[in-house]
Amino acid sequence: MNTPAVKSDNTGLVFDHETLPQRVRFGAGRAADNLADEVRRLGAKAVMVIAAPTESDLAQAICADVDVAVRFDDVAPHVPVDKAVRAREVAAEHRIDLLVSVGGGSTTGLAKAVALTTGIPIVAVPTTYAGSEATNVWGMTEAARKTTGVDSRVLPTTVIYDATCMLTLPADLAVASGLNALAHGVDSMWAPRADPINRALAAEAIGALADGMRAITADSTDLAGHEQTLYGAYLSAVAFASAGSGMHHKICHVLGGAYDLPHAHTHAIVLPHVLAFNADAAPEAAGRIAAALGADDAVHGLEALRRDVHAPTALREIGLDESRLDEAVELIMPVIPPSNPRPVTEQTLSLLLRNAWSGAEAERTRM
Amino acid sequence: MNTPAVKSDNTGLVFDHETLPQRVRFGAGRAADNLADEVRRLGAKAVMVIAAPTESDLAQAICADVDVAVRFDDVAPHVPVDKAVRAREVAAEHRIDLLVSVGGGSTTGLAKAVALTTGIPIVAVPTTYAGSEATNVWGMTEAARKTTGVDSRVLPTTVIYDATCMLTLPADLAVASGLNALAHGVDSMWAPRADPINRALAAEAIGALADGMRAITADSTDLAGHEQTLYGAYLSAVAFASAGSGMHHKICHVLGGAYDLPHAHTHAIVLPHVLAFNADAAPEAAGRIAAALGADDAVHGLEALRRDVHAPTALREIGLDESRLDEAVELIMPVIPPSNPRPVTEQTLSLLLRNAWSGAEAERTRM
Repeated sequence: MNTPAVKSDNTGLVFDHETLPQRVRFGAGRAADNLADEVRRLGAKAVMVIAAPTESDLAQAICADVDVAVRFDDVAPHVPVDKAVRAREVAAEHRIDLLVSVGGGSTTGLAKAVALTTGIPIVAVPTTYAGSEATNVWGMTEAARKTTGVDSRVLPTTVIYDATCMLTLPADLAVASGLNALAHGVDSMWAPRADPINRALAAEAIGALADGMRAITADSTDLAGHEQTLYGAYLSAVAFASAGSGMHHKICHVLGGAYDLPHAHTHAIVLPHVLAFNADAAPEAAGRIAAALGADDAVHGLEALRRDVHAPTALREIGLDESRLDEAVELIMPVIPPSNPRPVTEQTLSLLLRNAWSGAEAERTRM
Repeated sequence: MNTPAVKSDNTGLVFDHETLPQRVRFGAGRAADNLADEVRRLGAKAVMVIAAPTESDLAQAICADVDVAVRFDDVAPHVPVDKAVRAREVAAEHRIDLLVSVGGGSTTGLAKAVALTTGIPIVAVPTTYAGSEATNVWGMTEAARKTTGVDSRVLPTTVIYDATCMLTLPADLAVASGLNALAHGVDSMWAPRADPINRALAAEAIGALADGMRAITADSTDLAGHEQTLYGAYLSAVAFASAGSGMHHKICHVLGGAYDLPHAHTHAIVLPHVLAFNADAAPEAAGRIAAALGADDAVHGLEALRRDVHAPTALREIGLDESRLDEAVELIMPVIPPSNPRPVTEQTLSLLLRNAWSGAEAERTRM
């Protein structure tokens, strides 16, 4: 019925777990009040608001009760270094002591780039399910090369979640973003630093995401559905920050970087194939995923969810050329974590990628 | 089958959640290595080890690879202020920059009393399931009055869990301590700051504690059983620190303070009565508890567990005189949290206490 909390094998229960400090304020329609309250609590005197032009109205509304020293809206995907440098200059010019980011992963990422070198705290108000706000991971790009790192200074001090910020997301984007969040949770189950604690958080996240995405698919204005999805996306990101990148994220990182595929869609498409590949070799993880999805079997549970939310199914439909598959296998092989529950061979990875490319059904392990 | 992750009622999902930073190193037989590693990582130059005389051999073994500046063993229950003052003086004399506590709640509590005024970080090595090591709560007593408070300085930086430290606990004490930990998890479900996150952690904890205590009862030297119990005790304490004291802890705090009852046993006896009282008024909490216990019903699930582990059943058997019950009701009524899922009246509280006193079966709600 329920999955036992911890499987302690013969070698015993051994793990190191680091819990990162963060305050979360969750409530629909409360972002403006909660933000004003946090600015007071933190004693901030000079606030810099980072938001893309498309979200400037939203940011303005959320910051209605905050004395804003300067606004910065030159946000771009993958945080180009020159924009980070410019944002740091603006922060220095205005003697900024608090960064407020209103936006998705790129916006949060720019605030992190400023915090990385200045130590200025961040209050993040997310508008997608990307989850960057709950991690201490930063990333920047220069000349098409992405550098990433981990630093405690980039973890937002406070995250303000307001599901009303999600209501303008088109349903298909909301679902792709939610499936990207689901991938954080699922991949955490066997990532290099997976432990019972981050697995428990991931399981909670997966259940909330499944409920939330089904509700959003039925009605993209369903506020309770967005709340569930937002809550699940947060805990997925917490689990992911703790457990690290597993096989799924290594694959998607290579595909996204080398072939410029859309981030959330790539994750949404690849996930069922990695789950099917690993499930039988990771029975405890699969049991937790199945229970969280309300299914007897993790692979079937994810298939059912993907059908219900009309998930994208084929990499060929989002811009990956078939001729690249062999090269992709070569790029991915060296970055597969050695701790992955099932050893990966060129042959099995090639099959997995081909299935994800064509939109074939995910194949279970055949060892 | 599985409990939905979050119930979002009409008023929406609203909560503030603060996650406290802490590093946990978990592994049986690894305490000495993990401690030496943490001392290096923290760059400590002058370590003060706090351990009661009964645990000095254990502390010596755990600190085998650490350069200890001074040992302090004048530990007493409830942290008497004069002992805290003396410990602070010793820490100052030796210019201590790291406190290492090896022991149960009283030992951890003394280290916290030193940290409270000095800010010296703590590495805690627990030898019971008390859970103090995972909270930012401190307590001290002077002239039989207990003062408690919350301060981020008293939260241990690192906790080192080693289940081999538990093997010398007598089975009945191990179970009482484990049931005390279970009370942290169960009471977190409806405590004043209960939210989906601390409820999820509490549910994970309850499942691990149930499995672990059953294994310990069958064989008190079962290392895997102690590992599960230790893991569950940790997460219960994390949930409790986050959610705050619910009705159960308010009752036990009064009983323990006014009538000098043994701490863990008091919790073990009172818990089923509070669960039965609240369960029907808190269906989401009860559903989570039931699922964690592998039962269809939370109250039945706890009863079954208590039978299996031979839990103590009557306050009259641990030193509470029947003539005190009316007074106890008067002392407890004002401290029951207003947020308790079911309103408490003098009449219902009196019935609850009388049942806990006599060892009668826990009565479900009768509203």
